[in-house]
Amino acid sequence: MQTVSSWKSFGGTLSVHEHDSVLCRCPMQFAVYTPPGLAGGGPQDDSRGDVHGDPRDAPLRPSTGTVPVIWYLSGLTCNWSNVMEKSGLQRIAARLGVMVVAPDTSPRGDAVPDDEAYDLGQGAGFYLSATQAPWSTHYQMDRYIVEELSELVFSRFPGDPERQGIMGHSMGGHGALTLHLKHPRTYRSVSALSPIAAPMQVPWGEKAFTSYLGDEQSEWAAYDACELVRKQPSAAGILVDTGDADPFLDEQLRPSLFIQACEAAGQSLNYRMQPGYDHSYWFIASFIEDHLEHHAATLLE
Amino acid sequence: MQTVSSWKSFGGTLSVHEHDSVLCRCPMQFAVYTPPGLAGGGPQDDSRGDVHGDPRDAPLRPSTGTVPVIWYLSGLTCNWSNVMEKSGLQRIAARLGVMVVAPDTSPRGDAVPDDEAYDLGQGAGFYLSATQAPWSTHYQMDRYIVEELSELVFSRFPGDPERQGIMGHSMGGHGALTLHLKHPRTYRSVSALSPIAAPMQVPWGEKAFTSYLGDEQSEWAAYDACELVRKQPSAAGILVDTGDADPFLDEQLRPSLFIQACEAAGQSLNYRMQPGYDHSYWFIASFIEDHLEHHAATLLE
Repeated sequence: MQTVSSWKSFGGTLSVHEHDSVLCRCPMQFAVYTPPGLAGGGPQDDSRGDVHGDPRDAPLRPSTGTVPVIWYLSGLTCNWSNVMEKSGLQRIAARLGVMVVAPDTSPRGDAVPDDEAYDLGQGAGFYLSATQAPWSTHYQMDRYIVEELSELVFSRFPGDPERQGIMGHSMGGHGALTLHLKHPRTYRSVSALSPIAAPMQVPWGEKAFTSYLGDEQSEWAAYDACELVRKQPSAAGILVDTGDADPFLDEQLRPSLFIQACEAAGQSLNYRMQPGYDHSYWFIASFIEDHLEHHAATLLE
Repeated sequence: MQTVSSWKSFGGTLSVHEHDSVLCRCPMQFAVYTPPGLAGGGPQDDSRGDVHGDPRDAPLRPSTGTVPVIWYLSGLTCNWSNVMEKSGLQRIAARLGVMVVAPDTSPRGDAVPDDEAYDLGQGAGFYLSATQAPWSTHYQMDRYIVEELSELVFSRFPGDPERQGIMGHSMGGHGALTLHLKHPRTYRSVSALSPIAAPMQVPWGEKAFTSYLGDEQSEWAAYDACELVRKQPSAAGILVDTGDADPFLDEQLRPSLFIQACEAAGQSLNYRMQPGYDHSYWFIASFIEDHLEHHAATLLE
């Protein structure tokens, strides 16, 4: 693992790293925000002037203390930078004393299959394990996050593997919901902003699943939040926000299908429709504090 | 004036506008964040769910109430988007009930003189009135902001012209300090992040002033914060933050010269050196809340 960049932010450290992924068969980048105070008195010591946790001054892994880890999965076309630059999460993570990890949304590079469309190929990994050519050799984003990147992060950063949550936006909301439902003991808390909540029944999901998984819809169900929650609801309470000015709401997100599935399955869901908000990072920034606090309520209890 | 974009953000509205500037002789864009609640009970009504103030739903200018206006001047290469996307100011402006206006940093367009360097020409207006060819026909950024854009903003947005503050970053910090010192009754509060605090004595300023103003250094003094504060200190308390990991600190910013000038002139200055921070928006985001509160302490008193 190589550290590409590192900046002090709200007393903690935002750092970007690159490693050679075995599962994705390409170099992959990810970003980590570590809150202040880790090398000192633990995450409760969140004094903003503290310089510990900055790799320019101290080892990346502090000598004492671990903190909860919240995985943030991004949407179509994004990489680590969108949420780290535009959501304002660092202030909140610093205050709560939690780490946030932002993986990329797909394998990337000249050797990786791609498509001209924004919603297939690079930037559009859909957090699944592709089985179809030409995608299957590189597109293994669910296993990459749950297995490979997780092992790397917990070996190099002061995160507590017993206290993990997962959240995401749009395609990343789909990723967060499905990875939580499949791994509820790993990702103990979950939330989503504008998630693609029923991918088997919307154009984005149908296109991606057909390309990556083939025509057999029985193969798709393992990556559909509505199907998963019907079969295996979790004990966690799920928080979902969408904006009623989101141009993708009715065609691509379809939260009502997920609401119905949760009700039928007895899944606890706090669904909120936010008036006037769209699909953008202006929406994310406005509500991400509620989401991080939702996770902290479970992970810091 | 045309509205290019508008988004709901933290209950208020972020909007981007374009107008034909008479002084800059080209179309100019700027962004405005208006806090929630303006059409209702005034700025104290900052309920996040309020949809008033959104031009999709209501007139841009509400029927009652005005709020303080804080001008944010950006640094080299930037336009309105950097601070609005990366600083997180909307949350704070919504809470405080203040409006923030972010102008561009220069005239722009194919008809506007430019230079290949990032620190001259488009994106590098230095908040002055150029007197030298080929710059003088378009580069009038100080008068553009103080006169033309101000008149436009107060005619179209619910800002209170009696309660204005000004702040900025790097080249924009230079702009904020100099415009405040020259117009202390207009911009009653002032602060700067990583300002070019002594432009006559640093490479960025020497290059820009020579190009825009000519070789006669007596013409430069009207745009140098150190020179201005010696001649006409203001009654305001100035807040300045810099980071000690800022690569431009010693060569281009030189805050010590401004500190000395303030001391000699009896100018009230709260100068803070922030350990571990650099010149980036990660630094700005970490401290902009202190700056907006500094302005609010004067403008909301």
